[in-house]
Amino acid sequence: MASGGPEIEQLIQLLARLPGLGPRSARRAVLHLIKKKESLMIPLSAALDRAVLAVKTCEVCGNVDTTSPCGICADPRRTESGMLIVVEDVSDLWALERAGVGAVRYHVLGGVLSPLDGVGPDDISIASLVERAPTFKEVVLAVNATVEGQTTAHYITDRLTESDTKITRLAHGVPVGGELDYLDEGTLSQALRARTQI
Amino acid sequence: MASGGPEIEQLIQLLARLPGLGPRSARRAVLHLIKKKESLMIPLSAALDRAVLAVKTCEVCGNVDTTSPCGICADPRRTESGMLIVVEDVSDLWALERAGVGAVRYHVLGGVLSPLDGVGPDDISIASLVERAPTFKEVVLAVNATVEGQTTAHYITDRLTESDTKITRLAHGVPVGGELDYLDEGTLSQALRARTQI
Ligand SMILES: [Zn+2]
Ligand SMILES: [Zn+2]
Repeated sequence: MASGGPEIEQLIQLLARLPGLGPRSARRAVLHLIKKKESLMIPLSAALDRAVLAVKTCEVCGNVDTTSPCGICADPRRTESGMLIVVEDVSDLWALERAGVGAVRYHVLGGVLSPLDGVGPDDISIASLVERAPTFKEVVLAVNATVEGQTTAHYITDRLTESDTKITRLAHGVPVGGELDYLDEGTLSQALRARTQI
Repeated sequence: MASGGPEIEQLIQLLARLPGLGPRSARRAVLHLIKKKESLMIPLSAALDRAVLAVKTCEVCGNVDTTSPCGICADPRRTESGMLIVVEDVSDLWALERAGVGAVRYHVLGGVLSPLDGVGPDDISIASLVERAPTFKEVVLAVNATVEGQTTAHYITDRLTESDTKITRLAHGVPVGGELDYLDEGTLSQALRARTQI
C-alpha cells in the first residue's frame, strides 16, 4: 500500500532491488533520504546522474571505470610484461586493489563456467584472456575457491598450456567455498604472496 | 583506494550513509547498479530526481508525500471526526497504513521527548497536536513502547485532559522496547483493535 505518492513508492521499489536491501530496509532508506534531503538525497541524486553518464566497462580488462581503457590498464607503471590477475568479478578486482597487491593488471572473466546453469567458455571473457595472456610473465588465477571457480581455473590452464606464461593460483588461505570479496585485506595480500604454480 | 574513478567512489560513499548499508555493501550495490545500468541504475537515477522535486512534508500531519496536505489528510473518507493516530515517525505511519488500520488520520510527532538529549515539547510537533486533537473523537497514542515513548504519551495525555477527546494507547502486544516499524502487520492490527483508554 502506497503511503507517500507514486514517486516515493517507485523509489522504494527500485532501492529494494539492491543487494543487501529488502522492501523494509528500502523504505527506511527512502525515509532517511527524505529527512536528509539537502545533505544526502540531492547529492546522491547528482552523483547517480554523473555516474550514469560516466561509467564505462573497460574494453581491455572488463573493469568498470569512467574511462576505457580503465585507469589500471592505462597506468604505465603496471606493465604488460608483469603479472595479470584473473578474477571472476569486478568486486574481486576492487578487493585486490584495496589489499594493495602492487603494480599488476587484471582480467575480469565476468562469471565462471557452470554447465548446469548453461554458462560455457563463450559466455565469459576467456577468448580475450587467451589473447592477452602471452604478453604477461605470469597469470594468477584468482578465482573463488568454489567448484565452478576451480573448474574455470582448470579450463583456463588447459587453454594457456601452449604459451610460455607461468600460471599460478592464489595460495590456500582462501577458505574453501569462500568468496574473495568477503576476505580481509591481510589474508588476500598473504594469499597472493604465497601463490603456487599450477 | 579508488578503483573506479571519482564518480563511482563518491556514489559508494553516499550510498554507504544509508541505514542498513555499510562501505562494503555500498560497493556491492554500486557494482550491481553498474551491471544493471539500463534496467536499474538509470531508472533509479530518474526516480531519485523526480522524488527530490516532488517530496513534501505535509503541513497538517507531518507525513511525507508529493502533496501537502498529504493524500491521507486530503482523503474525505478519513474524516476529522474520527480517529487520530499519533506516531513518532513517518515510518510508523507507513507501517500502520500497511497494516490496513482503516479510515484514520495521523499526527507525526517527529521524535519523542528526551530530556537527556535535550528534546523538549517545543522540539517535536506537540503544539499542533494539541490544536488538532479536539476535532477528533479519539486520539490513539501509537508511540513506541520505550521509556521516551511512554514519557511522551504521558506528557501528551496531560496536555489533552481539558478536551473531551478520548485518549487511548495501543494494546499491550507491542513488545516492551520494541519499535513499531519492525512488527508484523497482524500484531499491529491486533494492538490497535485492543487499544485501551488512558
Ligand atoms: Zn582495464
Ligand atoms: Zn498529512
